[in-house]
Amino acid sequence: MLKDSARNRAYRQAIFDNADQIRGRTVLDVGAGTGILSVLCAQAGAAKVYAVEASSVWRLAQEVISENRFDNVVEVINSRIEDAILPEKVDVIVSEWMGFHLLHEGMLDSVIAARDKFLKPGGLIFPESATLYSAPCCVPGMFDFWDDLEGVSMRSFGEKLRSEASHKPVTAPVSPDDLLADPEVVTWIDLREATPQDADSIKMQHVAVANKAGKYQGICLWFTCTFPSYSTEPVALSTAPDEPETHWKQTTIVLPTEVPVEEKAPIAYELSLTRTSENSRRYNIEVTMLDPEEVQHPEYCGCHMTKCILVRAMLDRYEMESLPK
Amino acid sequence: MLKDSARNRAYRQAIFDNADQIRGRTVLDVGAGTGILSVLCAQAGAAKVYAVEASSVWRLAQEVISENRFDNVVEVINSRIEDAILPEKVDVIVSEWMGFHLLHEGMLDSVIAARDKFLKPGGLIFPESATLYSAPCCVPGMFDFWDDLEGVSMRSFGEKLRSEASHKPVTAPVSPDDLLADPEVVTWIDLREATPQDADSIKMQHVAVANKAGKYQGICLWFTCTFPSYSTEPVALSTAPDEPETHWKQTTIVLPTEVPVEEKAPIAYELSLTRTSENSRRYNIEVTMLDPEEVQHPEYCGCHMTKCILVRAMLDRYEMESLPK
Repeated sequence: MLKDSARNRAYRQAIFDNADQIRGRTVLDVGAGTGILSVLCAQAGAAKVYAVEASSVWRLAQEVISENRFDNVVEVINSRIEDAILPEKVDVIVSEWMGFHLLHEGMLDSVIAARDKFLKPGGLIFPESATLYSAPCCVPGMFDFWDDLEGVSMRSFGEKLRSEASHKPVTAPVSPDDLLADPEVVTWIDLREATPQDADSIKMQHVAVANKAGKYQGICLWFTCTFPSYSTEPVALSTAPDEPETHWKQTTIVLPTEVPVEEKAPIAYELSLTRTSENSRRYNIEVTMLDPEEVQHPEYCGCHMTKCILVRAMLDRYEMESLPK
Repeated sequence: MLKDSARNRAYRQAIFDNADQIRGRTVLDVGAGTGILSVLCAQAGAAKVYAVEASSVWRLAQEVISENRFDNVVEVINSRIEDAILPEKVDVIVSEWMGFHLLHEGMLDSVIAARDKFLKPGGLIFPESATLYSAPCCVPGMFDFWDDLEGVSMRSFGEKLRSEASHKPVTAPVSPDDLLADPEVVTWIDLREATPQDADSIKMQHVAVANKAGKYQGICLWFTCTFPSYSTEPVALSTAPDEPETHWKQTTIVLPTEVPVEEKAPIAYELSLTRTSENSRRYNIEVTMLDPEEVQHPEYCGCHMTKCILVRAMLDRYEMESLPK
């Protein structure tokens, strides 16, 4: 993960852009790992950094901090954040807590716990918010690829792979060309206010409109994180298909069978992410294909169904009429 | 592994180039997996193919063979090859048995067993031979990378990674630019004659000559396989750094510390691969750095040491003198 330069650069830029908010202040690094974010905050002028790391990696963090000569600034604490004791409240929390499709195996709860226990009122959280997106996509590597492998049909094998993939989301890069519709926000998490319960169960229903003809073969998920900013354009770390690849790649829930769609066809689906009862860091994802005839479309739906064309014509006329003559 | 198109193409070409040797003949596919090689042999005109697969993947092979309409040609046998019973001897054996750095987790013994039990005298083996190569290399992702990660020194972490890597070889693509010397053959296996004992313990000592200045940080291993040929240039499947990437990539044994070398510097090393006692498919690899002063250099060594320069001058003079006047 340390080799993920898109990630490292976003954190570095966000921390340095906000050096004015960090200089002379107290920082808490939640799940510090090897300590890279703690060192960046110390470089940005933090007076004190508490690097809390539960795993044995804390020893490595200690070494990294020493080799960067910040022993006098960064204090490594080997503890779960939930059990940690700090001598003071902090001005800033930094954390790289995001898991696959944002929540899976992530540490959101720990950041929320850290905020509630240790952040001064009005303190900053890096990143400050996170948004999860979804879009229908085709997955050629799971479908078409297996139809002809050096002249051999491997359809049975492709089917088996898809059957497995429809039980377990696939983490792999998705080409932006394979997205069939504009993305929709699944959930937006404001780290300043979120509670763990906000992430227990997330459900959305959406009518996406195919922006080209293609094969609807899966639902692609990705996220962005936005950092606080007082002076510059806020830094965003995006794991979208059209951004440089990160170690999170994209997550795809593959459908067992493909559905051919025409341009402007409505693709109605329900997506739910639910924590598993065995492990609160794990999520089950369910995609349900809905009948576009039966669900409500958004007001300005661009799909080719008669009801939406009529509504659109009516709205357009209304807008025309309300224009100043 | 099925997505490895370099592999698939090499087998396909080797089988089709040799269709004259396969048409109307009997083939045994050792470790058939999903059955792709069996189907290719059937397409090339085999009268009968025995697809022997020990794992439950045999069911999938059966489906793949059915969807390609070769049920009447290919017979799937769910068995270890060592326990298999075939009603006849075969003209051809095909197998994709190669593991990482050729032998690790590979199935060489099974192919040898199949040959001894089932191949007619003079029968063909696809591939027919395999060669393992080694060359000193630099591994920038394991060394230099960690010196400056977005302005943070992570040397301690890099050291830890290298210490782990020096116990467990790294499977990752190596850039041809990172090779420091021409490769040397570690071992050549002739599938027509090899015995399992040939692969119990492989040891080589070599003086490589750096073809450029650089940092000697590891030993890179890769292999090639050559297929039999009666009509065309033999097809070779190469997993060398300068060939298209395969799922085998390359294997690197990373040194705990780097050694700077000048152009024409001798790099003397001993490499040994030994089967582990617990699992005959696993190998321990050991690299020992030798003192170039103390080992014997090859006759035409191109290194910059005085003894080799003198020998070379002498040999050159001898050659000059033996030229017809």
